Amino acid sequence: MPADADAPRGRRSLDTDRLAGFSDGVFSIAATLLVLDLAVHPPGTPLDQVLHAWPGYLGYLVSFLTIGGAWLLHTAMTNRLTRADPNFLCLNLLFLLVVAFLPFPTRLVTEALRTDEGETVAATVYGLTLLALRLMAAAVDAYARREPRGHGRDDAQQAHRKLLPVVVGYVIAILIGLVLPQAAVALYFGIAVYLVVPFREIARLLFRRS
Amino acid sequence: MPADADAPRGRRSLDTDRLAGFSDGVFSIAATLLVLDLAVHPPGTPLDQVLHAWPGYLGYLVSFLTIGGAWLLHTAMTNRLTRADPNFLCLNLLFLLVVAFLPFPTRLVTEALRTDEGETVAATVYGLTLLALRLMAAAVDAYARREPRGHGRDDAQQAHRKLLPVVVGYVIAILIGLVLPQAAVALYFGIAVYLVVPFREIARLLFRRS
Amino acid sequence: MPADADAPRGRRSLDTDRLAGFSDGVFSIAATLLVLDLAVHPPGTPLDQVLHAWPGYLGYLVSFLTIGGAWLLHTAMTNRLTRADPNFLCLNLLFLLVVAFLPFPTRLVTEALRTDEGETVAATVYGLTLLALRLMAAAVDAYARREPRGHGRDDAQQAHRKLLPVVVGYVIAILIGLVLPQAAVALYFGIAVYLVVPFREIARLLFRRS
Amino acid sequence: MPADADAPRGRRSLDTDRLAGFSDGVFSIAATLLVLDLAVHPPGTPLDQVLHAWPGYLGYLVSFLTIGGAWLLHTAMTNRLTRADPNFLCLNLLFLLVVAFLPFPTRLVTEALRTDEGETVAATVYGLTLLALRLMAAAVDAYARREPRGHGRDDAQQAHRKLLPVVVGYVIAILIGLVLPQAAVALYFGIAVYLVVPFREIARLLFRRS
Repeated sequence: MPADADAPRGRRSLDTDRLAGFSDGVFSIAATLLVLDLAVHPPGTPLDQVLHAWPGYLGYLVSFLTIGGAWLLHTAMTNRLTRADPNFLCLNLLFLLVVAFLPFPTRLVTEALRTDEGETVAATVYGLTLLALRLMAAAVDAYARREPRGHGRDDAQQAHRKLLPVVVGYVIAILIGLVLPQAAVALYFGIAVYLVVPFREIARLLFRRS
Repeated sequence: MPADADAPRGRRSLDTDRLAGFSDGVFSIAATLLVLDLAVHPPGTPLDQVLHAWPGYLGYLVSFLTIGGAWLLHTAMTNRLTRADPNFLCLNLLFLLVVAFLPFPTRLVTEALRTDEGETVAATVYGLTLLALRLMAAAVDAYARREPRGHGRDDAQQAHRKLLPVVVGYVIAILIGLVLPQAAVALYFGIAVYLVVPFREIARLLFRRS
Repeated sequence: MPADADAPRGRRSLDTDRLAGFSDGVFSIAATLLVLDLAVHPPGTPLDQVLHAWPGYLGYLVSFLTIGGAWLLHTAMTNRLTRADPNFLCLNLLFLLVVAFLPFPTRLVTEALRTDEGETVAATVYGLTLLALRLMAAAVDAYARREPRGHGRDDAQQAHRKLLPVVVGYVIAILIGLVLPQAAVALYFGIAVYLVVPFREIARLLFRRS
Repeated sequence: MPADADAPRGRRSLDTDRLAGFSDGVFSIAATLLVLDLAVHPPGTPLDQVLHAWPGYLGYLVSFLTIGGAWLLHTAMTNRLTRADPNFLCLNLLFLLVVAFLPFPTRLVTEALRTDEGETVAATVYGLTLLALRLMAAAVDAYARREPRGHGRDDAQQAHRKLLPVVVGYVIAILIGLVLPQAAVALYFGIAVYLVVPFREIARLLFRRS
């Protein structure tokens, strides 16, 4: 129906199911591949080795939650679409390209924190990737927003509301990371938690009960 | 429809198809990545090397079946949902974070059993991850259970019935593992089999025939 | 509807979409992970190194096509299901456990062919895994066949027809492999091609044209 | 319905949902696995190491976009199908076999550019794989085109229109690569961009505004 309706306008229409299938694949694989970079290293007792691998756990947490937050945003954005035109598909591919790239800077920052070498460079590359992820998400969102539809509009509003503070947060964290790379990683963790945890909903739930 | 019906209550509604797509992705990738840690190591004849890699096969079996059991539980839980609110999505992400983490302690315990070093620490980390997986599943389940719907309720009942014995089983196995790590891994295997094999159904099938 | 209709019989009913999603995930990941084991090794000129990596290409081909053939069979089997009971889900998990295991013996046989060491053991382990894959598929098929439904019955018939010759073929190849491991791998390749290529359809197509 | 309608013609009919699920899995995994081959290597300062890893980033970009372009083409082709016959499934498996193979020549070309060794061989293997990908896509497309259906026909037309110039482009790039392997990789990048970016649509969008 929508395909035929659009045909006179000369646009291609593609199944949004395939878009969701491919995108969900990239999100879930990028998130799950992060585990491959977790490892323990000598020296030390077995317990020491497991505890000293904390940069790996931190990187896993931050990147998994960031990818999870990007997935939430993606779902909210594409929920409104009944069809995807070629421009949207191209923007979406570039967004997924950044999502699938994230395990690399995660590995960089994890290694740097573990070996105490090159932390500034690693934290900066990591932060720039997180920023690029968010800016690509904003571009996809802005394009999708051109044609508003009823269903799911509320989601996109919420996602939009979080966009600016998150971009500002990443820029500040990247700048801080030039001096204190470990503090920057802590900030990236905080932003990831902010993206995923629905504080408003939890507050609403608590107030409704009391 | 459900989205509009819920709108006055101010909740976001997201497509449960995307939730299933992303979750199925994480479950299937975490289960399939386990194979990457299987390897044979010198010394020994080729046959010896293949046989001496048994800790890898055991770890693969336990973790694959545990992830499979978690998937069964997840399917039973989400089957009842017609929509997913932000709190559910956040809990679900944290659940998947633990699922995707499982290959790491699997590798730890496999290496420890192979090299006879650090078995106690590895078995404990593995057991704590399995316990965390189950407790996260329970949290998701408890939240989903707040709004009962007709379809699939029976599944959730069954899943719920297995919850307490499994948590108790993991705690006992972790404690045993502090002394006998190999026995703990055997218990984790037993619990994984218990989670996946539908003994009731098989018994029913056998009785119906005779 | 089917869930409610079955409720009196006391069976659980689960969404076949989730079953397809998880299974497709395992099939596609197991098939795609095979590429990680492709590598070139010194010594030699760059061209020599690429050419001498032929055991890797052969293993990739055989295992990819075998997993593809298993996916075709799985699709044909589950196409008939409108619901999946716990026994089916358990059998299906065990089937997927063997599918996801396949990259390990593939790596074994590839390494053995490359280094000319342990070829007999590797070819036998590979053959036994392929045989186990087929027998698990037969078990899932036999269980699904208990309740015939109209749609897609023809597929299952075809899949069933290929079952016995393939099992016999694997057993013969495993026995040959005890003496001539390279010949066994060639036979596994032949069986994989037989599973995937629809010779009947191609013949029909050619005859219809002429 | 379509299954029963086709039954008298003796063809098997399979759910196109499963075809999409398996194919989307292979596309998204092949694209996401590319990140595993990104790595920094000593010597040099941390910043030098990150910058000197440029061949990895280039290979990631080219292969990710090429797989993305193949996915766009695949979606356009299969969108028209309401059922998949065995010949189509077999062709599709062979197409996916080449897609899933792409990370291997990507790794080859990345390593060659980094170490300045074997660039000619690596660029040629990479180009031949890209060409094979395109020819397999053309074969799937030609088969799907045998039975035109209304919905989505426009997509396939566009995809078809790009086929010949892309094949010619790959052949020219492979020949150039025999002398200037780096120029060939730059051309592969250009073709990948051409496959993914909808220049016509962007031009239309710009003209409509002005």
